[in-house]
Amino acid sequence: MSFEQPLPLQFKGSRPHGSTPLALPPKVTIEDFNSFIQSITEFLGADNVEVISTKEQIDDGTYMKPTYTHDPHHVMEQDYFLASAIAAPRNVADVQAIVKLANDLSFPLWPISIGRNSGYGGAAPRVRGSLVLNMGKNMNKILEVNVEGAYCLVEPGVTYKDMYDYLVEHNLQDKLWLDVPDLGGGSILGNTLERGVGYTPYGDHWMMHSGMEVILPTGELLRTGMGALPDPRRPETMGLKPEDQPWNKTAQLFPYGFGPYIDGIFTQSNLGIVTKLGMWLMPNPGGYQSYLVTIPREEDLKQAVDIIRPLRLTMALQNVPTIRHILLDAAVMAPKTAYSSKTEPLSGEELDEIAKKLNLGRWNFYGALYGPEPVRNALCGVIKDAFSAIPGARFFFPEDTPKDSVLRIRHKTMQGIPTYDELKWIDWLPNGAHLFFSPIAKVAGEDAMLQYAVTKKRCNEAGLDFIGTFTIGMREMHHIVCIVFNKKDPEQKKKAHWLIKTLIDDCAANGWGEYRTHLAVMDQIMGTYNWNKSIFLKFNEVIKNAVDPNGIIAPGKSGIWPRQYNKDEWVLR
Amino acid sequence: MSFEQPLPLQFKGSRPHGSTPLALPPKVTIEDFNSFIQSITEFLGADNVEVISTKEQIDDGTYMKPTYTHDPHHVMEQDYFLASAIAAPRNVADVQAIVKLANDLSFPLWPISIGRNSGYGGAAPRVRGSLVLNMGKNMNKILEVNVEGAYCLVEPGVTYKDMYDYLVEHNLQDKLWLDVPDLGGGSILGNTLERGVGYTPYGDHWMMHSGMEVILPTGELLRTGMGALPDPRRPETMGLKPEDQPWNKTAQLFPYGFGPYIDGIFTQSNLGIVTKLGMWLMPNPGGYQSYLVTIPREEDLKQAVDIIRPLRLTMALQNVPTIRHILLDAAVMAPKTAYSSKTEPLSGEELDEIAKKLNLGRWNFYGALYGPEPVRNALCGVIKDAFSAIPGARFFFPEDTPKDSVLRIRHKTMQGIPTYDELKWIDWLPNGAHLFFSPIAKVAGEDAMLQYAVTKKRCNEAGLDFIGTFTIGMREMHHIVCIVFNKKDPEQKKKAHWLIKTLIDDCAANGWGEYRTHLAVMDQIMGTYNWNKSIFLKFNEVIKNAVDPNGIIAPGKSGIWPRQYNKDEWVLR
Repeated sequence: MSFEQPLPLQFKGSRPHGSTPLALPPKVTIEDFNSFIQSITEFLGADNVEVISTKEQIDDGTYMKPTYTHDPHHVMEQDYFLASAIAAPRNVADVQAIVKLANDLSFPLWPISIGRNSGYGGAAPRVRGSLVLNMGKNMNKILEVNVEGAYCLVEPGVTYKDMYDYLVEHNLQDKLWLDVPDLGGGSILGNTLERGVGYTPYGDHWMMHSGMEVILPTGELLRTGMGALPDPRRPETMGLKPEDQPWNKTAQLFPYGFGPYIDGIFTQSNLGIVTKLGMWLMPNPGGYQSYLVTIPREEDLKQAVDIIRPLRLTMALQNVPTIRHILLDAAVMAPKTAYSSKTEPLSGEELDEIAKKLNLGRWNFYGALYGPEPVRNALCGVIKDAFSAIPGARFFFPEDTPKDSVLRIRHKTMQGIPTYDELKWIDWLPNGAHLFFSPIAKVAGEDAMLQYAVTKKRCNEAGLDFIGTFTIGMREMHHIVCIVFNKKDPEQKKKAHWLIKTLIDDCAANGWGEYRTHLAVMDQIMGTYNWNKSIFLKFNEVIKNAVDPNGIIAPGKSGIWPRQYNKDEWVLR
Repeated sequence: MSFEQPLPLQFKGSRPHGSTPLALPPKVTIEDFNSFIQSITEFLGADNVEVISTKEQIDDGTYMKPTYTHDPHHVMEQDYFLASAIAAPRNVADVQAIVKLANDLSFPLWPISIGRNSGYGGAAPRVRGSLVLNMGKNMNKILEVNVEGAYCLVEPGVTYKDMYDYLVEHNLQDKLWLDVPDLGGGSILGNTLERGVGYTPYGDHWMMHSGMEVILPTGELLRTGMGALPDPRRPETMGLKPEDQPWNKTAQLFPYGFGPYIDGIFTQSNLGIVTKLGMWLMPNPGGYQSYLVTIPREEDLKQAVDIIRPLRLTMALQNVPTIRHILLDAAVMAPKTAYSSKTEPLSGEELDEIAKKLNLGRWNFYGALYGPEPVRNALCGVIKDAFSAIPGARFFFPEDTPKDSVLRIRHKTMQGIPTYDELKWIDWLPNGAHLFFSPIAKVAGEDAMLQYAVTKKRCNEAGLDFIGTFTIGMREMHHIVCIVFNKKDPEQKKKAHWLIKTLIDDCAANGWGEYRTHLAVMDQIMGTYNWNKSIFLKFNEVIKNAVDPNGIIAPGKSGIWPRQYNKDEWVLR
């Protein structure tokens, strides 16, 4: 199988204002809507505004070319989370003008960077009828790549692939590496704001940011950290609009600034529209080697995780490695029909057979070594030695594996080379779509086994195979359960939706919470973070209402609703 | 010289309510004050409440035993930043009761952990007449040290020394190390909330926290991150008050939780009173070696910093090392009178003489190697080789230096052993007191030289010796200028105050801002973070007024004033 590089999300052809949208936001009349669209079209131009007025505009595309008009992995009705229109601002002033108009009408805006966020809702808004702000279409510049300071400054539309290409084109790879998530087509800024992770030593994207520019719900423009300090040595800035002014020279070097460190409140949140983000790049480590450890038995997960904990804590494991379930690897390589004619979940024996056929384990550990050869060799010895305690565990370098092996994909990912092969696993089922269920777990064998058992059991009850991976941070694991379903099978969609809702409750009953989620279950998950009468949510609502008095930015995001929305009516249970 | 271990801050003897305080908060009558103090005393007990009613209570103590009634390093009048009274809550419920009473009167509260914060205001409140909340006197428990997860959970009164003693007493040093700042007597929680730094690989204290418990200005109790998720597997929690409930088992493992990541807004801020903090501890690295590189000439600073940048970025320099000016080391060892009879600033020739006498350089670089011997040796070779480019640079291990050498102190600090010797440098002058001026700089020779030149020039204009150090983070340096002055010399105090105010403006004119500061110049520094019409401050004010409607928590902290305070009247310029 071969996949071409994904194209940027494209407008499907402009529709003049006056079209009747399929969805309108609450309490907005068609007259107000038309007037709003007419106003923004006047300054954005018709090419940058599209009203969603026909069913044909809601086209799933492929996962390589999703459209941004809704969620291509819709687990509820295809048009449940649907925009009334999409607008692509060209610059900060455009966003400010839209925000001003939206405030007049309490019109909900749903900013996206480029509209991926696959498995978590794609480009779709939480409130039906919202105006999706496609921030990345026109605002897609790499504003700076600073070699000496090892950082970059980007706009929302800059993808991992864009940044990688920049490093290659400028012959900078010998100096700077990028950290990429599983798929290289996403927005750096968007992924970081959702607190996504990658797989190099710089895998904690949020930890690696420095400096943000944010348009507040009032339309005011804010820079955080040292960005709040002007750079007075640049006389050429005289007369420049704030957004065009050079940043303070320490803004991408030191994230915290002076006074309250506010950056975090703009993540997974609805308090502003981020227009620029500083990110640290990784100095070329001076050497690299990826590897795979196959772990033969299902129950070996326990021992493997307990082996990993001290290695990761002491940074003998230098990056964010993963323990992948056999079916995640199997699904990347071929659809379920290539392995079995069964529609129900595969049995343990069948999984063993697949593992044997692919020369893999029931679990497969993907890691990498960074640094000069003596360092890599020393660490490699420690790691091999530790895993050798598992009877039957085997160690591979990429060259030991087939041309289409997952290790050869991960070999790229773990050195920050964007790939597009990872999501092939959604073709496990016909018309494959997916939801991510992503609870946090302690790096402990017992916890991993229990979380695996709880999630596998419910997957099987839903008639679905368990497909998942544990990505290993310093002290916790993001357990990513990939709920793959046939989106043209209404019964299976219902089961997938039942599954994620059930898993959220099951995990909460075990004290586990999710780090990120799909639109459909944001309310439910925020509902589980309910310690002491849900004070965390209440506190966030106080801030939301103060900062966004008309409730225009992404209402309902992460379960946080502005006061204009009656929660009895809006919260999904 | 020998210094005993500092005692905890002690009440000087209770004074019954009814005493007339030296200072009252704005718009609070003596009758209201007395009634407030009486109410507090009823539930706290007289031992935990003290009204500051006599000049004798304002005693500077020594720097080893500061009193917490004001700032022992007062650069303005000794009683300018003065509490009306001090109260030491015994638990969360006490704080909530005080907060409730304070809301009724808009009575300003100034929470301290144990009242160090040396050089930044000590225990003193920004608003004269505030009630200082001594959080650490009674709330001083180490609630958990988790070996497997390498973290601890502490109350405000737990000092670095307390935690170190705990590790020693429980024979945990072979597993866990602590990161400590220059002085071991401070509060872990307090230092982290001020975004202080230490000198091991875990030197960025804020980055290493996970989970906070906060009493909001409303009196509600919040837990952040995964702490917002209850731990339902603990049936014994039934009937426990929220603050006594066990934390979610992932709360100290994963800081971000779900939804907005709000922790940062409780640092250097006035939005709540933090009652518990989770901190990551460093796994024992399996080996340690400290070292010193002496750098002979003043102008070598440029080359040294440019050598350091790539080493630090690639983590060949694994910890937060420091480049210290000769006088910082000289002052730790003896007062100025031991070196010279001059009162005016020493000349370059005199500094060279001191360096020669102490067998040090004009700059001295203190670093450490962590890990097994082969790793340390490999890194040591790289580092020695890099510094050998500076003619005359010399390399020392602790055993190569005198018994009282600074390297022998730093040898402890860089492995997380608390010491109390560092602040000896305030005895450089008689009746020594100090202010820290702490701008952030790029790790670049040119920037370091310019920042050094600007600050040295103004120190000399103030008639003071330049004493300072650069502490080196991943991509920036905290340049710490130690402004030492004789606090019994009113003229010199004025000059020190002039100096810091002038340095703030000079540095802002160069695009440099401070990471933290003294009460007396918080307004001025926030004033320099004025990009785009001071939107950063305005945004913080919006949040402040929403979260703390009566403006009771630490008004004026970091230059953020609640709406009840007329800024024309309160802002110090």
